[in-house]
Amino acid sequence: MRTFRCITHQGDSGLGRKDESLAERFSFSIRATDGAARTGTIAMRRGEIRTPAFMPVGTAATVKAMKPADVRAAGADIILGNTYHLMLRPGAERVAKLGGLHRFMGWDRPILTDSGGYQVMSLSELTKVSEEGVAFASHLDGSRYMLSPERSMEIQTLLGSDIVMAFDQLVKTTDTADAQQAAMERSTRWARRSRVAFDALGNEGALFGIQQGGLDEGWRRASADALIDIGFDGYAVGGLAVGEGQEAMFGCLDFAPGQLPADRPRYLMGVGKPDDIVGAVERGIDMFDCVLPTRSGRTGQAFTWSGPINIRNAKFAEDAAPIDADCACPVCATWSRAYLHHLVRSGEILGAMLMTEHNISFYQQLMAGLRDAIAESRLTAWADQFRARYRGGR
Amino acid sequence: MRTFRCITHQGDSGLGRKDESLAERFSFSIRATDGAARTGTIAMRRGEIRTPAFMPVGTAATVKAMKPADVRAAGADIILGNTYHLMLRPGAERVAKLGGLHRFMGWDRPILTDSGGYQVMSLSELTKVSEEGVAFASHLDGSRYMLSPERSMEIQTLLGSDIVMAFDQLVKTTDTADAQQAAMERSTRWARRSRVAFDALGNEGALFGIQQGGLDEGWRRASADALIDIGFDGYAVGGLAVGEGQEAMFGCLDFAPGQLPADRPRYLMGVGKPDDIVGAVERGIDMFDCVLPTRSGRTGQAFTWSGPINIRNAKFAEDAAPIDADCACPVCATWSRAYLHHLVRSGEILGAMLMTEHNISFYQQLMAGLRDAIAESRLTAWADQFRARYRGGR
Ligand SMILES: [Zn+2]
Ligand SMILES: [Zn+2]
Repeated sequence: MRTFRCITHQGDSGLGRKDESLAERFSFSIRATDGAARTGTIAMRRGEIRTPAFMPVGTAATVKAMKPADVRAAGADIILGNTYHLMLRPGAERVAKLGGLHRFMGWDRPILTDSGGYQVMSLSELTKVSEEGVAFASHLDGSRYMLSPERSMEIQTLLGSDIVMAFDQLVKTTDTADAQQAAMERSTRWARRSRVAFDALGNEGALFGIQQGGLDEGWRRASADALIDIGFDGYAVGGLAVGEGQEAMFGCLDFAPGQLPADRPRYLMGVGKPDDIVGAVERGIDMFDCVLPTRSGRTGQAFTWSGPINIRNAKFAEDAAPIDADCACPVCATWSRAYLHHLVRSGEILGAMLMTEHNISFYQQLMAGLRDAIAESRLTAWADQFRARYRGGR
Repeated sequence: MRTFRCITHQGDSGLGRKDESLAERFSFSIRATDGAARTGTIAMRRGEIRTPAFMPVGTAATVKAMKPADVRAAGADIILGNTYHLMLRPGAERVAKLGGLHRFMGWDRPILTDSGGYQVMSLSELTKVSEEGVAFASHLDGSRYMLSPERSMEIQTLLGSDIVMAFDQLVKTTDTADAQQAAMERSTRWARRSRVAFDALGNEGALFGIQQGGLDEGWRRASADALIDIGFDGYAVGGLAVGEGQEAMFGCLDFAPGQLPADRPRYLMGVGKPDDIVGAVERGIDMFDCVLPTRSGRTGQAFTWSGPINIRNAKFAEDAAPIDADCACPVCATWSRAYLHHLVRSGEILGAMLMTEHNISFYQQLMAGLRDAIAESRLTAWADQFRARYRGGR
C-alpha cells in the first residue's frame, strides 16, 4: 500500500487536540491496482472518498430531488457543486455569509467545485474571452460578471470547497488545431495563476489541475508536463465527453491517464454512462461526475444492470417487480415499476425523487462493484460480465 | 374513558393467533373532553389514529413531494386518497391487481378514501347527475365513466381503503333552498345504497356517512337523523369549507357536530387553515383533511406559529434562522430560511420537498398541541394563545 500524505496543520498542542491538529488536508492511498485501474482512498478533513468514486452533481446547492442524507445513504462520499450557478444564485459572498456551502445545503462531507470555466462558455451569453479571463452575462437576468483564475479561486474558497478546480479555457475536440493549441497554452498560464491565487487564499482544501490537449497524445503530454511542473493535489482529464464518442474517448484514455502522476487522483470530468465509467476505470481514472443519473431520474430513465429502461413505457404499467431485482436501494426494496410508472406518467414529484434515488444508488453500487473487483484482481472478468449484461439487456 | 368497539373477527383459535384474530375492525375511545372538544383514539387493524387527527392528502397515491416514511415521521397516523383521481389513473382494478393502495404506494397505516362525489362535480367534464349516479368525462382524456353509490363502494374496496366514505351529491351553500333540499334527500338515499353495497362487499374497513344540509340547522338535523337511522362507523360534516367563510362555517359547527352521535368520530371534510382547525376542534370535530400544507409547500408558503410566511420574499434571502424556531421538524433542525428561499426561487424540487415536509409536520404538531390541551383541560387557554400569536405574526 502506497500512501502519499500532505499534512498542513502540524500538531502544536497536547494529546487532546491530536486528532484535530493532525487532520489531513489531502492524502491519496492506493490500496490495490489491477492493470491500469486502481482502488484507494482520498482522506480529507471532511471525510474519506473511496476511489474509484462517482460524485453526484449538486448544481445549485442541491443534488436535484434528493435530501443530502439520502445521497449519503446511497453511498456517495463527495458531491459536486457548480461555481457558475452558485456565483449567480445565491452568490458566493452570500453563501459565505451563511456559513459556507456545506452548512447552507446540509452536507458535511467533501464537496468538489468546478471552476466555472466550462459552464460560462456553454450557458452564459455575450461571453468575451481575454488573457485576463472571461466576461459574460448571466443566463438568468443578463447582469454582467467576470470570471478569471483569481476570481474562480476566490469564489470556490468562499463556497468552502474541499476540492477546488483550476480555471481553464474551454476547448472542443472539433476546434482547429491552432485554436486547440492556443487554448491549451492559455489554460496552462491560467493553471499557474490558479495555483498562486489558491495558495494566497490560505485555502484548507485541495487544488486540482486540468489536463487539456484534445485527442492528441503530444498535446496531452505537454499539458500534463506543464501541470506537473506547477504541482497539484490531483489532476483532471479535461476536454473529453464533449461529443467525441466513446471510442475516441477511450482512445485518448489509453494514454492520457498514464501521463499524469501515478500517486495522484485522476478525475474524468463530466463522465458518464455506466459503460463509459467502467471503461475509464479500466484505463486508470479514479473520479467521475455526471448529471446523467439525476437528470435521467427526472425524465423517467432508470439504470439497471441490464441496461437503461424508460419507466414511462406502457409495458411497466402493471409490472409488480422493482426497477432492478439486483439493486440494493430503498426504492427497489419498497416500490414497483408499476408505481413508478404511475408517478412519472402523472408528473408527480415523488416520481422524480424515487427515480433519482435509485439512479444515484445504482451508480454508487456500480462504483462499489468496480472497487471490489480491483481489490480482488478480477476487474477484467467483472467488466466483461457487466458489459455483456448491460448491453444485452437493451 | 368511554370505548365503543366493533369486533368483526372473533377469536376461533389458540393463544398464538390471539392478537390477529381479535384485531379490531373499528373502535373509537374518547380519552378526555374539554367543552365540546374531545381527544381519543380510533383503533383499526392497520393502526391507531390519535384524534383530533389531520390527514395529509395523498391524491394520486402519493402525498405530493414526500416519501411515506417522512409522512409517518411527521406524525401522521392516516392519510387520504382520492377515489376520483385513482379511478382514472392508474385505475382501481389495476391497484387491486397490484396488491391494493397500501402496498402500491408503500404506506401500511390507515387510509381514508373519499367517495369521488365532490371531485367528480368539481373536476370532471360533461357531468350528468341522475338518481342512479353521476356520468362524467375524465378531465385527463375525456373518456367516460359512471360513479354511483355502488361503484364508489366497489372502487374504495378495490383500493383497500380503511375508512370508506358514503357517496353523496355535491351541494353548495349558495344553491337555492329547493336544490339544497333535493340534494340532501338524494344524498340520504345514496347513503343507504352505500351502506347496503359496502356490507355486501365484505369490506374489512369502516364506513362513514356524510351529513349535509348547508348552513340550516333543521336540514342538518334531518340529515343527521336519517344517517343515524342507517348507522355508520363515523360521520362527516359535509358541504362546508366551500367558500362560505370561517364565520359562517363556525356558525354551522356550533350545532352540526352535536347532532351527530357523541360516541362516533366526526370528520370535517376539506378543512383547513390552522385557525379553522383549532375552531372546529373547539366545536367537537375529530378529523380533518386539507391540501393546504402540501399545496402551499409547493408554492413557497410555510406555516409557522406566528402565521404563514412566503419564503420567496426577498427579506429571507440572507435569513439564517429556520422557518420556525419552535418547530420540531427535521427541516427546521437543518436548513435556513435563506436556503429554502434559494431553492424555491430556483425552482428546485428539493424546495417543494422540504417546504411540504415542514408544513405537514407543522400541522401534526398543531394537532398534538390540541390533543394535549384537551387531555389537560386547558383547550380554551391554548387556543386563545395560539390565535393571538398566529394572527399577530402576520
Ligand atoms: Zn434501486
Ligand atoms: Zn419545521
